[in-house]
Formats: sequence, C-alpha cells, structure tokens
Amino acid sequence: MKKTALIMAGGRGERFWPRSRKNLPKQFLSLTGDGRTMIQLTIERILPIVDIEDIYIATNKDYIELVREQLPNIPKENILCEPVGKNTAPCIGLGAIHIAKKYQDALMMVLPSDHLIKYNSMFINSLKIACNLAEQNTNLVTIGITPDYPETGYGYIKFNPEKSVGQAFAVDRFVEKPNLEVAKEYLATEEYLWNSGMFVWKISSILANMERWMNKTYSGLLRIKEAIGTSDENMVLEKEFYAFDSQSIDYGIMEKAKDIYTVPGTFGWDDVGSWLAIERIRKTNEYGNVVSGNVITIDSKNSIIDGNSKLIATVGVEDLIIVDTEDATLICNKDSSKDIKKVLENLKICNRTEYL
Amino acid sequence: MKKTALIMAGGRGERFWPRSRKNLPKQFLSLTGDGRTMIQLTIERILPIVDIEDIYIATNKDYIELVREQLPNIPKENILCEPVGKNTAPCIGLGAIHIAKKYQDALMMVLPSDHLIKYNSMFINSLKIACNLAEQNTNLVTIGITPDYPETGYGYIKFNPEKSVGQAFAVDRFVEKPNLEVAKEYLATEEYLWNSGMFVWKISSILANMERWMNKTYSGLLRIKEAIGTSDENMVLEKEFYAFDSQSIDYGIMEKAKDIYTVPGTFGWDDVGSWLAIERIRKTNEYGNVVSGNVITIDSKNSIIDGNSKLIATVGVEDLIIVDTEDATLICNKDSSKDIKKVLENLKICNRTEYL
Repeated sequence: MKKTALIMAGGRGERFWPRSRKNLPKQFLSLTGDGRTMIQLTIERILPIVDIEDIYIATNKDYIELVREQLPNIPKENILCEPVGKNTAPCIGLGAIHIAKKYQDALMMVLPSDHLIKYNSMFINSLKIACNLAEQNTNLVTIGITPDYPETGYGYIKFNPEKSVGQAFAVDRFVEKPNLEVAKEYLATEEYLWNSGMFVWKISSILANMERWMNKTYSGLLRIKEAIGTSDENMVLEKEFYAFDSQSIDYGIMEKAKDIYTVPGTFGWDDVGSWLAIERIRKTNEYGNVVSGNVITIDSKNSIIDGNSKLIATVGVEDLIIVDTEDATLICNKDSSKDIKKVLENLKICNRTEYL
Repeated sequence: MKKTALIMAGGRGERFWPRSRKNLPKQFLSLTGDGRTMIQLTIERILPIVDIEDIYIATNKDYIELVREQLPNIPKENILCEPVGKNTAPCIGLGAIHIAKKYQDALMMVLPSDHLIKYNSMFINSLKIACNLAEQNTNLVTIGITPDYPETGYGYIKFNPEKSVGQAFAVDRFVEKPNLEVAKEYLATEEYLWNSGMFVWKISSILANMERWMNKTYSGLLRIKEAIGTSDENMVLEKEFYAFDSQSIDYGIMEKAKDIYTVPGTFGWDDVGSWLAIERIRKTNEYGNVVSGNVITIDSKNSIIDGNSKLIATVGVEDLIIVDTEDATLICNKDSSKDIKKVLENLKICNRTEYL
C-alpha cells in the first residue's frame, strides 16, 4: 500500500526564546549545530520509505512561506494550511482527506516536525513495522518510546505485554501526564511507554474513527474534501476550521478507540523540549559547556552558550543558559528554564510584540 | 596665590571591559547613570575653586580628541600630551612646567580623572585646607582618605597624630599596598589613611623636589619648558619623554621627601576600581539589582546589569555582572570580576584587537 506522511508543523513553542519567535518557531530552527532545521531533518529522515511527493506538511498560514523556503522540494499543493490552530485532531483530519482525495486509501504516518531522532535506521525500521501492522487491518498504530526516566511532561501508553504481534503490543489505554510518583510506578511496571505523538494508520481507518468519535469534525472535513480544487476551497476551509472544536488526537480518538497497537521505539528520540535538551543533543566540551558562535569562556562550566557573531565573554559562571540573537540576549539559570515563558508574559503585557 | 589643577587622564584601565576599551578608557565613560563621564564630573567638581582656564589635562595622544570632545570648554593649549605613558611623575612634571611657564609660581592640585566623590562641598573644603597649607610653605600636601575597611589594593599614608596643623597631619611615610593582615593592623592603629593620589603643592615646591629627587627627569622637563611655544616643542617633548624613567610620584618623590602633610578626607571617595563599584555608586533596586538599559529581570537578584538598546532578559540568576555593548557582551560572576582581564589576555593572544 502507498506510504504517505503528514508532518505537523503548526507549533508555536516559546521555550526556545529568544531564538524561537512567534514568526520562527522551533521546528524552523537549527538546534543540532549541523545547519539543518528540525523540519528539514524530519523530512530527510523518512525519505528512505516515503516519496517526497507523498509527504504533506500541515502548518498555520503564518508559516507557509517558511515551509516553502526550508523545504523547496515538497510540492506546493502538499503544504496544507490550517486557517486557525485547532490542536492535532483537525490537523490530522485535514491531512487525511487530502491524501484520500489523491489515493482513496493509503498508509499515513503522522509525525511531529520538531523532534530529534538519533538512530535514523532504527527509526525507519520501527516505522516499517508500524506500517505492516496498520496495513494488516490493525485499527491504529502508535510509536511509543521506551522511557529512560520518570518524565512528568509526557503522556504515557499502557500496553499489554501478553498481547503482541511481532515487536508490537496491544495498547490497554492512553494516560495523561502523570505526577512524579505515578511516573515512577509506570516505569517500575515496565508496561508503559512515552506517547511520542507519532502514529501510523490507513486513511480508511483514521477516517472511520473520526466518523465514529468526532462526528461533527468529520462532517466538516468531508465538506472541505468536496471543495478541494474548486474556487471555494479556501472559503470552505476557513469556515469549517473556525467551527471545529479544538481537540487533540489523543483525547479525540486514541483514548476512546479499540484495537490500537504500539511499536516500542528505541531510536534515540528527543522532543527537544527546552534549552536544556541542547546538552543531550550536542557535544559538551571538557568543561561541560556546549558552545556555539563567537564565544570566549574563562573558568566557566556546565553552561549552554548559543552565540552569534557578537562576542560573548563569560567569566566564572556556571549552570547558565546564554542565548544571543540580533535583538535580544537571554541569560537564564538552568534550574529556571521553565520560567523563560515569564519573560514572554512580561513582553506581552508591555505590548513589546517585536520580541515575541 | 593662583589656584591651578592638573587632571591626570592617561589611564588605560581594563577592568570596565567591555564598556571601557583601549580607545575609550574608564575616565571617558559615564558610570554613575546621570550621563556625565568621570572626567566631566572631575572638572565640574573643582570649578568652585579653579578657573576653567587654569585647569590642565594630561593624557596620552590617543585620547586628546576624546578630551576635546568631552571637555569643550577647556582651552586647547591646556590639554597636554604625554607622547608615551611614563607613570605619574613625568606627567605631573609636564603639568608643572606648563603652569610655571604661565604663572611662574602657583598652587597646583593634582587629581585623577577617574575617581568619584559623593560630597562635593566637603571635597572642596578639603582642597581649600590643602591649598592654604601648601601656600604656607609646607613642602607637599596630599589628600588622604579615611579608610572604611582593610583594602589591600591601595597604598597607605602613615601620619603622625601628634603633629597637626588645623585639620592636617604630618606624614610619617607612604607605604605600598599591604596584605590583608597588615591592612587590618593599619586600620586598628587609626594612624593610616588611603593614598588617593590627590596632591596639592606650589609649583615651586614640586619642581624643587623634582630637581632634588628626580634630577634627570627634571633636566628633561626644563628642556621641554624651554621649547614650549616654539616650532621644536613637539620634537623636544617626544625626545625627552621617551628618555624619562617610568616612575610614580609616590616612589619618585613622596616616599623620599620631608615635610609632607596630609588632609584626611571624608567626602565619599570611590576609585571605582571595578564593575563591583557600581553597586556602591548607583542605587540597587528591591532585588539588589543595579539595572540600566533595555532589561527584563525575572527572579534575578544582586546583579549588575549594564544594558543598552538590545533587550537583555535574565531568568533566575544571581550575583552576576552583565554588560552589553554594541559588539560584545560580558557575563561575569561577581566573585570573578578580577578575571575579566583574562578575557582581554585571550583576545590579545588571538590578535582580536577590535575588542580591546
């Protein structure tokens, strides 16, 4: 069966401020130090199993131009515009009807555009397993991540170790972000995986699930499908999208549907959730620093310094995140990285939108 | 007797990098937050007792233009060029012969250009006392500073509490920078003052001392004096200056001469020796921060943030010195401020002179 992919690229993350901005979110940044952006890496990674003309990008209208610039080889008609962000379910639905319009049925991989994967060949292998499973009349397949530690920032997938097909396991249920104690219990049972937000299914399966569990959204999607290629397309798309409920695919479908399988992935997945991730994905030097740009460090250690052409000199500092951009510089204690959003709140209150 | 002043402005201090640069040393910076530079404040401070046409500035040739720009009311002929830095004795000698050429004899105050004084009227009062004393055939007069704590970075003046004239005391001796233990002893005796590098004397006195204690330099100075106003002036000045020994007035004269008096000053003197001084001379806010420029602080305390037009955002930091300039940003732990010079050493080694 034809393999297609939908890359979700509408995120507006603030955690990489000041590098990420409202008009340049994380997926369009190069954070690995090799010059390629997160979304470029995402596309390159799946090219061994998906033809480029079968890759779809869903993003909001502010980023259409960025997607075109960064991914010039993706056909323009595959760049799908979400007129307004309505979380992942409408986004995935939009991708599904476009693929359905072209191929009737096909395999559809759903992938975030802002995660990193270390071992691409192992990732491709997991995707292939998921595709085979989805093709064999399994309802829905999700890629789970074998957890390294009791993370409280992710949702989890409870699987049934007694019920496996090859390397995949039947999913008992999807669970929301746990507190630390619960997360520790999950790890101890060895029956939980991180929910990575990566899915594989047939178009016919996901649309059948949408019809059943999100019927109102499904009807709207059908109207959009009808309008594709007509002069009404944009008008219908806007009208229906604004009317959609904002809903995640997890809450809208995965937590309700039956016959879901998960493929446990161990391919060095990282959601690159904050500046602290940079230490995991880039090499630290002998002093524990990760340094890029025009930087001089004196007696400084365990710091992340993301510089630019301007000279940054650090003296005697420790455990800092320093990020220099054209118009703004962040100096943040590593323990306070969650509070970077307070800077953005402050900027919003003061209406200093140029920095957002 | 006519009162004149020599302002010494040849210093090349590196401790305010990156604000201070080779071509913009500390005396030409505004550090108080009121917009006026150190040297401008120095001049304004003495105008109640010295006419502007009797104020002389000695500086090295790289800073002549800066002095003219910042002090447009000082007569151009009063801006004296040291062709090469030879420490304070030749600098003071140069000032003395220029004043001698104009007035034969006069009172000469010698003042650094990069210190701050909080209570100007008390300072003026101390200068008046010193002038009166110097005029009454006291050989040399120095302004001492009543010490607040056992500073090891200054020289000290041992005075004789039994031998006073008005509010001045006879100097027993000048002593070099002590170690901490010795400095504590000095404080305990209550017979030591900090040597502020501010002096008052008659031109006839200082030249007589130069003749006696620094005869070679004195002869050179006389040759320079002869050439003032002639077409040979610059040539003679250069030739003699290069031949001078590099010597401080303390070592060259003060430590040897007799009949020196000191006027203890309690006028809020600060030599503004490093970025840490900014906390003393500018107001800290409720979080212990001293902030200027385009700065947002989140959960940050006890830090000095000297910003500019570029946005600086700090999150969860403590005890940092952050200085942002057009082409360089410093992030320094307060405990490491003495190591800022290591950045400059590094820059010199790498021949990145644009940042020096």
